[in-house]
Parts: sequence; C-alpha cells; structure tokens
Amino acid sequence: MYFPDEEFEHRLHRAQTMMSEASLDALFVTNETDLRYFTGFLTRFWESPCRPWYMVVPASGKPIAVIPAIGAELMGRTWIDDIRTWPAPQPDDEGISLLIDTLRPFGRVGTPMGQQSSLRMPLSGWQTLNAAHPIVDDAGILRRLRLIKSDHEIAMISKSCATAGRAFARVPEIAQPGTPLSRVFRDFQSLCLQEGADWVPYLAGGCAPSGYGDVISPASDRPVQNGDVLMLDTGMVTNGYFCDFDRNWSIGDPADDVARAHEELIKASDAAFAIARPGIKASDLWRAMADIVGATDTGRLGHGLGLSLTEWPSLTSDDHTQIEEGMVLTLEPGIEIAPGRLMVHEENIVIRKTGAEFLSPRQAPEIPVIS
Amino acid sequence: MYFPDEEFEHRLHRAQTMMSEASLDALFVTNETDLRYFTGFLTRFWESPCRPWYMVVPASGKPIAVIPAIGAELMGRTWIDDIRTWPAPQPDDEGISLLIDTLRPFGRVGTPMGQQSSLRMPLSGWQTLNAAHPIVDDAGILRRLRLIKSDHEIAMISKSCATAGRAFARVPEIAQPGTPLSRVFRDFQSLCLQEGADWVPYLAGGCAPSGYGDVISPASDRPVQNGDVLMLDTGMVTNGYFCDFDRNWSIGDPADDVARAHEELIKASDAAFAIARPGIKASDLWRAMADIVGATDTGRLGHGLGLSLTEWPSLTSDDHTQIEEGMVLTLEPGIEIAPGRLMVHEENIVIRKTGAEFLSPRQAPEIPVIS
Repeated sequence: MYFPDEEFEHRLHRAQTMMSEASLDALFVTNETDLRYFTGFLTRFWESPCRPWYMVVPASGKPIAVIPAIGAELMGRTWIDDIRTWPAPQPDDEGISLLIDTLRPFGRVGTPMGQQSSLRMPLSGWQTLNAAHPIVDDAGILRRLRLIKSDHEIAMISKSCATAGRAFARVPEIAQPGTPLSRVFRDFQSLCLQEGADWVPYLAGGCAPSGYGDVISPASDRPVQNGDVLMLDTGMVTNGYFCDFDRNWSIGDPADDVARAHEELIKASDAAFAIARPGIKASDLWRAMADIVGATDTGRLGHGLGLSLTEWPSLTSDDHTQIEEGMVLTLEPGIEIAPGRLMVHEENIVIRKTGAEFLSPRQAPEIPVIS
Repeated sequence: MYFPDEEFEHRLHRAQTMMSEASLDALFVTNETDLRYFTGFLTRFWESPCRPWYMVVPASGKPIAVIPAIGAELMGRTWIDDIRTWPAPQPDDEGISLLIDTLRPFGRVGTPMGQQSSLRMPLSGWQTLNAAHPIVDDAGILRRLRLIKSDHEIAMISKSCATAGRAFARVPEIAQPGTPLSRVFRDFQSLCLQEGADWVPYLAGGCAPSGYGDVISPASDRPVQNGDVLMLDTGMVTNGYFCDFDRNWSIGDPADDVARAHEELIKASDAAFAIARPGIKASDLWRAMADIVGATDTGRLGHGLGLSLTEWPSLTSDDHTQIEEGMVLTLEPGIEIAPGRLMVHEENIVIRKTGAEFLSPRQAPEIPVIS
C-alpha cells in the first residue's frame, strides 16, 4: 500500500466528525474516487462498467466494502477488514440485497448528490435500494473531506507534477515541424510513461497558426508547422493522484501577439499565486487572473485536483469557497487573441499556512520556441 | 469525423424504430458511451467529472445536444445541428432548466436504468429533472442498439486488436528477467502507443511463479523472474473503440502444469469460437469453455466490447442472450492451477452470418517463452 493505515484512519475520523454534525449514521459511496478516498483501493478495472462497487462508512467503526468477488483479493490488501462480496455479474440482484442487509443497522444514510458527484450503479438498483432504505444527501461531506489534501496526498500530486514537468521539458525531442499532431500526442504519452507516470488518463491539446481553437479535442493528423502554437495539457497519475497542467510552444519564432499573450498568461497565474493563501476566496483567485487576461464571461480559470483530474472548487466569479491550507489548485488563465485563436496556460499549486507553493515547475514568461 | 453521417443516421433509425415499439417519445442519455453512440463526439474531457453532458434523442428528428459551452465547438464538428449550451460550471443550475425546456415537447422519456448503465449527472439535478419531467426506463433500447456492431464499428475494433497484437508481439523486448513489473507495464503502454493506439485506458496483468493471484491489480515493482508467468491484458482504443485481450508468457521454460494450463485455455477459447454463430446463446459459449477448464462457479468467461472495455452480454451460465450477427465478444477462459495460481487467456471475435472470425490474432496452444 502506498499510504500507511494512519492516513485512512485520519480520513475516517474527519468523516465521522462531520457525520456526527450532520446526524448521519453512515455514508454510502459508489464511485472510484470516493471509494479510493476511504480505502486506497487502486485498480484500472473501473474502466469496466459492468460491475457496481459499494462502500458503507459507518458513523463509528471501519468502512465496510460490498463489492464483486473479483475485487476481494485486492481489497484485502487495503486496511479494510469487513469485505462482503457477491459473484458479479448477477443481473437479477447486482449486490443489492447484500447492500440492503449491510445498511440495515444504520438509520440515516447519506450519499453525495451535489456538484461533481455521480452515482456509479444502475438506476434500477438505486430505486430498489431506496425503496428498502431511503438514502439522503451527504450534506456535502465528501466534498469537504476531499477539498483538503493531506501531506501524503500532496506528496503524491507533487510527484505527478514533477513527472509531467520532465516530460514537458522533452517535448522538443518529439514535436518537430512536419510531425503529425497525432504522433506528438502518442509520443508525449510515451515520454510521460518513460519519466515515471503509472498511466496517462488525460491528454488534450491544440496546434494551429498563432493559437488553437479549442482545448478538448483529440489530435488530428495535421503536421506541426512553422508559425503554429502547440499546447499539450496532461493529467497523468502516480498511484492514482493527478497532476493537471499544460505548456505552450511556438513552432519557429512567435508572432508578437503570441509572445505577448504568453507573457500575459504567466502574469495572470503569477498574480493569482501571489495572493493565494488561507482566508481568501476561490473567486478572488479568479478575479486576480481575470483582471489581467480580460476575462468577462463565467468560464472558470482553474479548479481543485487530486483523486480526479478536476475537483472543487471552481475558480469562477461566483464560487466563493474559502481557500484553506492543504488545498491543491490549478491556475488556468486563458486569452482569446482573436476569434478562434486561443491560448491557455496552467500551473498547479498547493495552499500552505501563509501562502502558496508551486507543485508544477513554474513556466517563465517567454514562450518556449521549437525550431 | 472518423465515421460518415450515414452511420449515425442508421443508428438513429434503429433507435427510433425501437422507441416507437416501446411508446417512448424521446431517449435521454448522459454518459460518455451513450452520447458517443449517437454523435461520434470523442474527447478525453470526460475525465473531468465537473460538468454533466446531456443528449435528447427524439422519436422523430435528429438528436439534440444540451452541453457545457466548452464542448460546443467540438460537438459542432459532428453531425449534430441542434446544440444548446450553458456556461458550466454553474452549480445553481447545471444545465437543468435548459434540459427541462428541451424535454418539454416530449411526453414519455426513457433513460437506461438496467445492468451496466450509469447516470452521469449529480443526483440533485436528477431529482429536480424528475420533479419537472419524470423519466422512465428506456426499455433496454441502448443495450439492444449497442449489442450489435456496424461494419464501421467492427473495423475500428479490429484496428485496435491488430495494434494490440503488434504490441504483444514485442513484449520480449521489454520484459526480460530482472525488469520490475511496473517498468514492464509502463513500457508496454509505450509499445501500444508506438504501434498506433490513440491512448491506453486499460492495462492490467500479473506476474508470479507458475501463475498469478489476481487480474485487476496495478503493477508492483517486483522484478520479473525466471519461473514466472507474466500476463498482460489491455484495452487500448482507436477513435474510442476498444480491444480487450491478453497474452501470457513463461519466463524461462514453463513448468509442466503451466504449459498444460495454457494449452487447455486455448482449447477452451477455440471450442467457444468453433460454435460461435447466430442463434446460440451467450450461456452456450460459457458452457463450451467451462466444460474444458472445469469452471463451476458463476464467474464470467467473456463479454461484449466496443465503445467500452466491457459490454453486454456476459458469458455466464445464466445469461441466455441470443448471439446475433454483428456482436463483438471476448472469449476469456480462466484456470486455477492451484490456490492463488491463476491463468487467464482472452481473444476477441466477431459474429458473422455463419460463424465467427477472430479479431485478435489467435494465440497458439504453446505458451510463448521469454528467456
């Protein structure tokens, strides 16, 4: 196990304190990140949507796993003792009766229902469960738990950031003029793996003359060309903990507006970094960047990260979440140089007692050039 | 776009025929695979759980996308014309009022609720939606649609299988005795990318003396050793279409029971392949393999695949789904040589009019040796 048991004991203790305040007798969680939060259970098997996985976290005592038999061995290597299984797939009763039995001793049971949450089980099973044991909202407990990262978590995210930093530094090896962008995407993922990523769940980017059109598309086969701005944005993982930042390159000497836009982006992320500390609000970080890049819409300019690529809070004008020690955030300002010519920059930071530290290796104002 | 518009018109036509039979006025879908099925919308941005995405498929007329503004440009490159957006994230109303407006003209609206389905939106939004417009079960329509693959889909899965086949053939380059298994996992993902995978969503495996203990764990740093059986199982994608098969290697000469187990596994997948044709049942394929490997429990010995790593049907004793032309399946027999010493083999096949074809390059009975 990549974390000591004390890490999970501490998480459980925080959860149980919040459950007591919210008068909940248990939490019920179903998705990868929430289950991993309480157990460290790490597998890529979540890619298979066939089997649901359940976990019950009581207001006192250790969590109970209610999972497909295929996961028993791996779950047995975590700190969890009480592992109840059924021989999934079993469509007529996909663990639901076992789950109802498990929940019987508990009265008020909450599950995450708010922003960014998801229920990872079929609705038919959810309806059967609720008919037997109505489930209520978790009062935001999972969100509040996961907002604040422990030192162990910060170290793991930091490792992912360092790995990505080394991979980004090697991009000139793989992104010469003439190379198809799809090849650059494949080779960049290989660089991440060579530098130590466990796997690369996320890679997006763009490459077009003097700025790209969007930031979520897969790569085309169009070759990288002189005059392009290339952007790569990755979320790779170390023991399941993400980094999430990007880098831009000018292919050949940058146009003046490209060079200027890149400087403004760095100025914006630096401005947010400078004020980032406990006590301010997520919206303050948004404003520090928006004032520089001239953002007026409600798009977000950063977000939390950790067990997933993006987490709460959102750095938007109307997210007034208090910034606290232990939060890990992306600062992600964007500039539209002209219609359809966008540039986005992103760094990862951690909030400490009196300020912020960069987890990603801060990018200098001058856009790197590949020639 | 990697498929012509006619592909999506054909899918829509099939859906609308089924909707008419089921007296549904529209389908409502929220998750990556179902949305991709109707649109071809391909992005790795689903890795970000912050924003829900919605699609309404009417009983007549084209699908309507109700999506975060950040996806409008990419969705605009698909065959979809009617794209309605909101400036997500917007926690107070994460597209729900826009969605309710969009659904207003439709009476009975169904969403997938059965096995393997999932709702990808917060439950709070789901409850608000249902209070305004109750949503019913989709009568299994998405399952029935996706069970049968088109020629375009089969070609894409076939391409993923061929790519994985080339990567598997190169494993002796990266898995020498002394190499940590975690290194083998990283390098194998690089081989997949070098051979043409777009990305590698899934890699599992095992490596231990004369058979491995489980098949869903991440890799440890333990070095590969003489006497080990190494297994790698990958789901890589081409334009979002998966392969899902594995290969085993003996590190040094295999023990007799390992060599024999491998031969039995191939005999089992060959036996299922031999009877695979339209008209038999999923459980018949299970039995053909179970009779050879001596499986008595209810674990499955294969499944569908396509837009996701695993799909319906399950090859189990009690899944009596009719096998039809156009299904793509894995044949995945397993043998427990001794307690804690498992071997699993997997091939991918497509069902044609009069029999099956291998999509993965069929493995010979002799276990490959790395020395």
